[in-house]
Amino acid sequence: MNLLFWWEVVGTFVFCVSGAVAARGKDMDWFGMFVVGLITGTGGGMLRSFLIGDLPPVFLRDPLYFGIAGLATVIAVAGAGWWERVRRAVSVLDAFGLGLFVVTGMRIAQAHGLAPWAALALGVISATFGGLLRDVIRNEVPLVLRREIYATACIAGGLVLIGLDALGSPEGLALAVTTAVVVTIRLLAIRYAIHRSEA
Amino acid sequence: MNLLFWWEVVGTFVFCVSGAVAARGKDMDWFGMFVVGLITGTGGGMLRSFLIGDLPPVFLRDPLYFGIAGLATVIAVAGAGWWERVRRAVSVLDAFGLGLFVVTGMRIAQAHGLAPWAALALGVISATFGGLLRDVIRNEVPLVLRREIYATACIAGGLVLIGLDALGSPEGLALAVTTAVVVTIRLLAIRYAIHRSEA
Amino acid sequence: MNLLFWWEVVGTFVFCVSGAVAARGKDMDWFGMFVVGLITGTGGGMLRSFLIGDLPPVFLRDPLYFGIAGLATVIAVAGAGWWERVRRAVSVLDAFGLGLFVVTGMRIAQAHGLAPWAALALGVISATFGGLLRDVIRNEVPLVLRREIYATACIAGGLVLIGLDALGSPEGLALAVTTAVVVTIRLLAIRYAIHRSEA
Repeated sequence: MNLLFWWEVVGTFVFCVSGAVAARGKDMDWFGMFVVGLITGTGGGMLRSFLIGDLPPVFLRDPLYFGIAGLATVIAVAGAGWWERVRRAVSVLDAFGLGLFVVTGMRIAQAHGLAPWAALALGVISATFGGLLRDVIRNEVPLVLRREIYATACIAGGLVLIGLDALGSPEGLALAVTTAVVVTIRLLAIRYAIHRSEA
Repeated sequence: MNLLFWWEVVGTFVFCVSGAVAARGKDMDWFGMFVVGLITGTGGGMLRSFLIGDLPPVFLRDPLYFGIAGLATVIAVAGAGWWERVRRAVSVLDAFGLGLFVVTGMRIAQAHGLAPWAALALGVISATFGGLLRDVIRNEVPLVLRREIYATACIAGGLVLIGLDALGSPEGLALAVTTAVVVTIRLLAIRYAIHRSEA
Repeated sequence: MNLLFWWEVVGTFVFCVSGAVAARGKDMDWFGMFVVGLITGTGGGMLRSFLIGDLPPVFLRDPLYFGIAGLATVIAVAGAGWWERVRRAVSVLDAFGLGLFVVTGMRIAQAHGLAPWAALALGVISATFGGLLRDVIRNEVPLVLRREIYATACIAGGLVLIGLDALGSPEGLALAVTTAVVVTIRLLAIRYAIHRSEA
């Protein structure tokens, strides 16, 4: 449980920084970077809370998320160039965050009595809606709706989790395999995309 | 009741296809078309659910809506040209969907204890918010906010329903008349708009 | 209490007109002006309602808000030029509305059991989210995320309120001081911005 918690913190942090850095590119001030960062990191969980009535959303339950978004804002203000240089390393963390958001989103949905197909939908929403909001607020057509492999990775991971649950897999194994599936597809996609953009 | 249900399915389907086709025009992938289609068809009902706490929204209760959005995506990918050719015929179905969304939205609001004026607002929201979200996500100023006759048809229908309720009209009649009012205004508006665009 | 109520009505009205006038600039019809006006004035309260489950939002509880948005629409249609001329006077009312939205947002959040830091977040959301939605629907990068002093005024006011609460200040004094802080910072910022834009 503790490991899960810290993975989610790391995933949220990477999402927040991506949002705050993207906000900076739109001439936003520190408040804009903070808000867009916070929304990118916690927007998926927020919509999930709205959809199942699990209120208030997590970012209002623990000040930790404001701290994470604050740190992300500092990085966006002071270290955007540095962030750009470590982006390839960061995309691994981002992929882990994505996988974990799918898993925790599905588990919370199931705990609220949703059927597997609906839980899968909530897992994908948990993982992708923050990025969608980030782009809508920045006045861009959402990236997640234009690069299919992003959502495909989440859906594949979610389907694997449903399959492992049906087979009676122990929780730790189910979680590790699901996250690994999401991470693998994402990293393959990033590698492929890098090649394509070089062509 | 069965007829009502199938009308709503047809209306949702037409809305979903309009969303998925519009997403294609923004260079979205299949996931983007699916999401925008689903949101266009069920976004009005989703906001209604949020506003009155009727959770989860209908698209998470019945996998049918994901199936409808999936079919809409297939049409957007494979048959956008064909869809364009039948668009005038489809606009009749779209108008019926609009009318029905107003009626079902108002009935659900009334069942949750809202006053007639608030139920009217929820009926209009149910019918128009999906299209508004479709355009916000596609990074366009929402069409429904620029062509007044669209909302006017919904409001007129809702006012007629309130009037018929006050007169003690039987449910079937109230429903038929309300939908007919919305459909008539919409189709007159479409005919008028066609003429204007030819001028 | 009565004074508070009327302050909020005035604040909502000023926000609604700003939204309706801004909608007009995007070629929207009367329905678009009405919707964007209503959302600008009540969108902050709506998100607050969603976040803490305080449903339905205030704009569905009292038809007054539809009346305010309707009046704002009339002004946007008939008196946009006149509104432009009184804008500097109006910005004082707008600042009062902002301050009051922070205070009422925080009080409602505290009544729902939220900690001070979370109540502060809800106060800022209550005051700023309507303007953010106005700009997202108008397809613009939100102003509130680009001009930091706007949010800074709200946060400063909220921090002062938390401090006064900790000191056991009587409610009337806490409210007056908090609003005065928000108004003062806002008006100084407006004066500064005017000078800068003249330079």
